[in-house]
Formats: sequence, C-alpha cells, structure tokens
Amino acid sequence: MSARELPLLFIRHAVAEDSHVLGDEARALTPEGRAAFRHHARKLARLTPLRGIITSPLVRAVQTAELLAEAFGVSGVEVHPALLPQRGAHKRIVDLGRERGAGWALVGHNPSLERAAIRALEHELPDKLRKGAALALHPLKNGGFTLAWWATPGKPVKRPGDLR
Amino acid sequence: MSARELPLLFIRHAVAEDSHVLGDEARALTPEGRAAFRHHARKLARLTPLRGIITSPLVRAVQTAELLAEAFGVSGVEVHPALLPQRGAHKRIVDLGRERGAGWALVGHNPSLERAAIRALEHELPDKLRKGAALALHPLKNGGFTLAWWATPGKPVKRPGDLR
Repeated sequence: MSARELPLLFIRHAVAEDSHVLGDEARALTPEGRAAFRHHARKLARLTPLRGIITSPLVRAVQTAELLAEAFGVSGVEVHPALLPQRGAHKRIVDLGRERGAGWALVGHNPSLERAAIRALEHELPDKLRKGAALALHPLKNGGFTLAWWATPGKPVKRPGDLR
Repeated sequence: MSARELPLLFIRHAVAEDSHVLGDEARALTPEGRAAFRHHARKLARLTPLRGIITSPLVRAVQTAELLAEAFGVSGVEVHPALLPQRGAHKRIVDLGRERGAGWALVGHNPSLERAAIRALEHELPDKLRKGAALALHPLKNGGFTLAWWATPGKPVKRPGDLR
C-alpha cells in the first residue's frame, strides 16, 4: 500500500465522564469507554496502517489518541490547535487533513469533526459520527476527498455501497 | 500480595517536547520519551500490580499515565487537580496519596512531586526524581511512608540499601 492509498482518518474521542471539577477539558474516558475503544482501535489497525496521529489537547482526546497509538504501533502523538472544539474549527480540521494527507489520524470533537467531514466530502453524512467512530477519507489529487469506510464501535465497518 | 502491601507510586511524566504553540499544558511526549517510558512501564509492571492511576490533566502527564495503564492492564485513569503543577501542590499530593493509599500511581510534575516525596518520607531524597522515574512508597499505619524502591528509566531499580 503506497502512502497515496492510505486513508486520512477523522476519529471522535471515546465515551468520557459527564463532567469534571477542572472543567470540560479534563473529562477523562470512562473505564467502559476505554475498554470499548481499545477493542475498536485494534479493529481499525487491521483495516489500515497509519503514519502518525494528531489530537486535540483535551484529556479525553489525548487518551483516545494514546489507545490508537498503542493499537497501531505509532511512535508519536502530536497535539494541534486545529482540533480544539472551537467555532470554525471544521475549516481548520479540513486544512490540516489536506496538509498532512494520507496516513494520518486526526482525533477531535463534535460538532466540528462531523462538520469537517461534511466539508471534506462536500455532502451530508449517512449517519452521525458517534463517540469513538472513525471516518476514513481517500484524499484526491484535486484536494477533495471520497469516503473510503466508516467504523462505529460495536458495529460492522461500512463502505460507500452499504451507506447509500 | 494484600492491598496493604502494595506501594503508592509517585511517577514523573516522561520526556516531552520543549514547547508548544498552545502553551506548557499541551507539550506532548517526544517519540524517544514515549519509547523509553513504554519500556520502563513494562519493567515497573513486573515489580508490582496497581489498583488505579491518577494523573495531572496536562498532555505529557496524561500520555505517561496512558502508557502506564497499558503496561499494568489498569482499566481507569483519573484526572485530579492535586497533581497540577501549582504552588503548594506537594501538600495536596501527599494528602491524595494518604487518601487513596496502597496500589495507586500518581502521575505528576516537578518540583511538586519531588517535594511531595520529601514531605511523605520526612527526609531528603538520595537522587533527583528524573523524567519518567517512579518512586515506590510503603504506606505506614500512622499515616507516614517508607521508601520501598526507586526506578529511573534506563537504570537498575534501587532499594533503600542501595541508596544509603
């Protein structure tokens, strides 16, 4: 598989606790969310290799990115401001995806990650991007993307033919 | 091994990048720091089991805690404000250690973590608490602690007899 053929992954953080005394940024994965995402990450790693992982700095995203790094055997997890849950973040996420391209996983938050996928694909999504879900996009030479596959924890992997 | 006999671990985060555009809180582990700590965490897991892990919310600490969770097979990583690098944190770290006690690992920062160890042991440390180092304390019935062992990445584990 050449780097050109690797997908770009958009991955929403796994299930986290509802609140934290230090605020939203410090919310951690629940033990159940962690166990489900660990299993899911191993499944994702059988679908594609990765070149690197980029995450939001929020605890639940960093933890999700670390579970991914372990499953994929990736040696680095970078933190990038584009993945912070902020107004207008969806545009910055697509720009980051274009800049890094094939073989990178971007771990972030909704609604910005789901909006970024809609912007990248230039059409509505066939389902919600649930917690822990991974959306695989194939970068095109013209800067656009097509949907390669979609994997929600606990569900079969879906491909474009299944989603129509 | 009864819970009473498990140590309380103080663990300093692994080697991280020098700066980050989002500030100190977002500094991530370097690939080398990650690899060295992964190896170290496996060594620690052969020394003792753990009941749980508590970490500072800063990215480099969360990443270190996740590498520990993987090596120890621990299902939960909690975030606690006592481990934030703040003035006076060393007192709060010792209080947290007394409250949770045997079998818990606290992942934090210097100088507060090193100062917490000095406060818990009531004497100066025989060496610096280096990045990624783990200090194992045995909780005593009177609320005090004794030093069980000390493990710095890339060095042999030291016990009180080696440290005098």
